[in-house]
Amino acid sequence: MNIQPVPALERSRRDEFQACIDQKTKPPGSLGRLEALALQIALIQGSPTPQLCHPHLLVCAGDHGAARACVSAYPQEVTWQMVENFLAGGAAINAFTRVAGMQLVVVDTGVAHAFGERPGLVSRQVGAGGTASYLEGAAMTRAQCEQAMANGAELAAGFAQRGCNVLGLGEMGIGNTASASLLTHCLTGRALVDVVGRGTGLDDAGVARKRDLLAMALARYDGAHDDALAVLTQFGGFEIATLVGAMLEAARQRMLLLIDGFIVTAALLVAHRLAPQILDYCVFAHRSGEAGHVHQHDFLGVTPLLDLGLRLGEGTGATLAYPLVQAACAFMTDMASFADAGVSAKV
Amino acid sequence: MNIQPVPALERSRRDEFQACIDQKTKPPGSLGRLEALALQIALIQGSPTPQLCHPHLLVCAGDHGAARACVSAYPQEVTWQMVENFLAGGAAINAFTRVAGMQLVVVDTGVAHAFGERPGLVSRQVGAGGTASYLEGAAMTRAQCEQAMANGAELAAGFAQRGCNVLGLGEMGIGNTASASLLTHCLTGRALVDVVGRGTGLDDAGVARKRDLLAMALARYDGAHDDALAVLTQFGGFEIATLVGAMLEAARQRMLLLIDGFIVTAALLVAHRLAPQILDYCVFAHRSGEAGHVHQHDFLGVTPLLDLGLRLGEGTGATLAYPLVQAACAFMTDMASFADAGVSAKV
Repeated sequence: MNIQPVPALERSRRDEFQACIDQKTKPPGSLGRLEALALQIALIQGSPTPQLCHPHLLVCAGDHGAARACVSAYPQEVTWQMVENFLAGGAAINAFTRVAGMQLVVVDTGVAHAFGERPGLVSRQVGAGGTASYLEGAAMTRAQCEQAMANGAELAAGFAQRGCNVLGLGEMGIGNTASASLLTHCLTGRALVDVVGRGTGLDDAGVARKRDLLAMALARYDGAHDDALAVLTQFGGFEIATLVGAMLEAARQRMLLLIDGFIVTAALLVAHRLAPQILDYCVFAHRSGEAGHVHQHDFLGVTPLLDLGLRLGEGTGATLAYPLVQAACAFMTDMASFADAGVSAKV
Repeated sequence: MNIQPVPALERSRRDEFQACIDQKTKPPGSLGRLEALALQIALIQGSPTPQLCHPHLLVCAGDHGAARACVSAYPQEVTWQMVENFLAGGAAINAFTRVAGMQLVVVDTGVAHAFGERPGLVSRQVGAGGTASYLEGAAMTRAQCEQAMANGAELAAGFAQRGCNVLGLGEMGIGNTASASLLTHCLTGRALVDVVGRGTGLDDAGVARKRDLLAMALARYDGAHDDALAVLTQFGGFEIATLVGAMLEAARQRMLLLIDGFIVTAALLVAHRLAPQILDYCVFAHRSGEAGHVHQHDFLGVTPLLDLGLRLGEGTGATLAYPLVQAACAFMTDMASFADAGVSAKV
């Protein structure tokens, strides 16, 4: 598969943009992390007055063969039932995208359900019944993996054509924290025990069972742990692979990416291995309550904006962080300088 | 002065509202701190479908006599210059209230400047040149303190009459972190050295000088440290006293209060001493970079929502937290239950 490179940010205007920030009518540095965020957005857009246009929130849904082995606290049919809930407007991500003013796009990447033609549902099924169980073999074929990534790239390119320059990423898929744990273990080298968590709410016995099952899946796999596409093919989900493709293309199109929780960050670990420059385009929305998320952030050397104990997925954290991104952009674009406002400088 | 009590929250419907939250289509507890926030708002409004109406952000500006002794990194005239900047729409709080959809109200509580009649500026001057210097005597008279509090109460009552049920609080006043440090020391009992910080950006020598000056002011005062009104009169500012009055009346009117940074939290320490139930109505927006803020939060036993290293004041943190409050309200009001959406429950 030919992975197109993500362009490095043009840093020659960094000092110019930082000077703009420092001349705003506020004590230097007093907007804290919003200042670094504003600089990042200015660099991505190559402008001291960046604008956020047509923000989208992409939710990829997919089922996991391994879910039938009870790696989750919820039965597999919850994936399609929650997709129905998205379409009916009754899920958290519906409420949050309405508040944030983001366009919600729901994609069926391989849910074990026949939705038929449905308004509001984008069908990009790679495998109709979801992935195969990685407890027995590879979750998907290499061709399926590449198809899912190509689907994601095509979706992101479509958003860009509509003028979107900020993309939040979310997911739905019963069993996908288990898949994300395997990806995270392989791609960060952290111990499996540290990156397996409660998901949607397993008790201690459930976590122990999940961990044992995942250790078995790992024992079966004799490929390289640092081959991101091999690992994605072995242990990933269609929704995760679609997200990887979407992220890579979105960064290539110079969009700002809002990275949500544990599963989306697992997808980013894959994308980062394929194109390390992607990090320049990422905003890490929140630290979730899922155990492995902090290890992903540590590995990437990043600190998320919010820490609210969220562990819902769907992209909810990305939508909650979006107003901070808007505020960073707004101060950069709208605030007066000391000179313009006639405000005295520091003594 | 007759302080009217703040009503305790009616907690008899707590279980009912918690059950509503738990029946939403998400794993129990998976919205983290937003769930506690939703419960708080439901209890304040006595409704499982709370609504946020006409959100206001009140910025009280005032000057401090002690500022002329260089307790700040900026000269005193920055107070009126920043008020002009608010009126012209060029400050951070202008940008942030626009993003958040909040109505900005700027009040002159005693700025050392003759603004005249100005569109967008509410004049509630208690003393035209600002407070007296607490380095030499009481910052204000008891009558001035009570007038400022009455002004704040009248403003909050006016917002309530317009249908406002959520109020963010902010301030502007060169020298007011020094005043807030004195209030915080007296009302929490924390050591002065722990609650004196850099304000708008003092260097180490500046902080040492500020601390020495404040220790002198304390040495001059022989009243009780736990008499909130006496302490406010001695060391407060007109903007702080106005905020105290506004907070108390807003809580009495069952508004949700968005508590900003170090100075606003110092005002809350006064209000809390006068009417402890006020805490039930407060959302602590953020932990600022100002040294004493964490001690205020520890004293009150609260954890703020955001931790972004902000130290700008003006109410900026309150506006940045407001979208989280909106999201909490939106999920409580808009999300489907498991039964309504036909989603299977936990295995």
